[in-house]
Amino acid sequence: MTETYTCAGEKNIPKRTVERLTQLSRLLEQTETQYPELRTISSSEIERLTGWTNHTVRRDISLLKHSGATAAGYDIHALKNAIREQLHIGAEEQACCIVGLGRLGSAFLEYEGLKDSPFRITAGFDSNVNRTEILRSSFPLYPTTRMKEIIEREHIQFAILTVPGNAAVATAQRLAEYGIRGIVNFTPAVLILPSEIEVENVSVADALSVLAARLARCRPA
Amino acid sequence: MTETYTCAGEKNIPKRTVERLTQLSRLLEQTETQYPELRTISSSEIERLTGWTNHTVRRDISLLKHSGATAAGYDIHALKNAIREQLHIGAEEQACCIVGLGRLGSAFLEYEGLKDSPFRITAGFDSNVNRTEILRSSFPLYPTTRMKEIIEREHIQFAILTVPGNAAVATAQRLAEYGIRGIVNFTPAVLILPSEIEVENVSVADALSVLAARLARCRPA
Repeated sequence: MTETYTCAGEKNIPKRTVERLTQLSRLLEQTETQYPELRTISSSEIERLTGWTNHTVRRDISLLKHSGATAAGYDIHALKNAIREQLHIGAEEQACCIVGLGRLGSAFLEYEGLKDSPFRITAGFDSNVNRTEILRSSFPLYPTTRMKEIIEREHIQFAILTVPGNAAVATAQRLAEYGIRGIVNFTPAVLILPSEIEVENVSVADALSVLAARLARCRPA
Repeated sequence: MTETYTCAGEKNIPKRTVERLTQLSRLLEQTETQYPELRTISSSEIERLTGWTNHTVRRDISLLKHSGATAAGYDIHALKNAIREQLHIGAEEQACCIVGLGRLGSAFLEYEGLKDSPFRITAGFDSNVNRTEILRSSFPLYPTTRMKEIIEREHIQFAILTVPGNAAVATAQRLAEYGIRGIVNFTPAVLILPSEIEVENVSVADALSVLAARLARCRPA
């Protein structure tokens, strides 16, 4: 039994495939920008880029209605658009907020990684009013006391959580109450939230551990 | 065909299981700290914490030699240690460096998320000498011209890459040349490197897209 998503009138796409295709669409977008002379890409080249096996790549792509497959490989532009269309990536702008403007949180005030994405950071929050007044930002910063009001007014659905670890659980619970539906958790804290709230944990320690497990001990078969 | 790792004298553990168990061991560690009154945890509780299905959780854990399973659930401490032992997590300290000390990179100068991990940041690099001289840090900062020397001297195997996107590919290629074996890539750039170098891409845009795909369109079956 694999975790799947039921999508009305469409093939079920396993959760892990959704994650891989999401990453693949970003890699294709980036490849288009970095290497404009490339028109097509083979599944072996995707394997090299992503670390997923050739077989996994081809199976994931086979779940799309269109794949941009040609004799010379996948058409980069067509495959990117096929993924975006089917996963509804980039359909419309989605409002996000950053919660916690310490060193890590304030790094997102000038973050270039969301530039080509549908996500727009429209608010930042910190419990320290000095911080929200002093920091320079292209979007407005507010004290956390105004979270409820701003999240509702701006229809913000996503939060990037960068508060100190010991404030993470309480803050996430408040965000869930105020209508946030998805949280990117940069804190080391374990978030226990109502099941309708989705959490993605982003952890440098996990990323390093995965690299170490791959390198130190086992080699891919 | 699933991606597997061949581990001398042990069961093969699929790559994705290594990733999940790695994250699980961190979540268990954190749960021990946050909720010291909890002694055991059920696979359903792990499902709630991680978003993985009960079935996936039990299958992953079944690949361990010991699991800490009791009538009341998994013993949190024993399960954590079983994972760490089998994946060789925390066996010995591993040296890492941060490359690129802009806003995102310098956020790691005070990062608390590696505290309970075996990873120690032992050097930071930036092409701007002013930056390496002015920034306060608990570990030494160097100009990028000294990367080769310091990486070799300190036996650094891992790099956290936080340079601007347009410098990412060239910097990663240099790191690979100087002996770095694993890169946590925070830049939006696609890294094309020799196959013996492992890369983990960490992207807020990907994390948000995965949340959006889960929420906006499909609900878990």
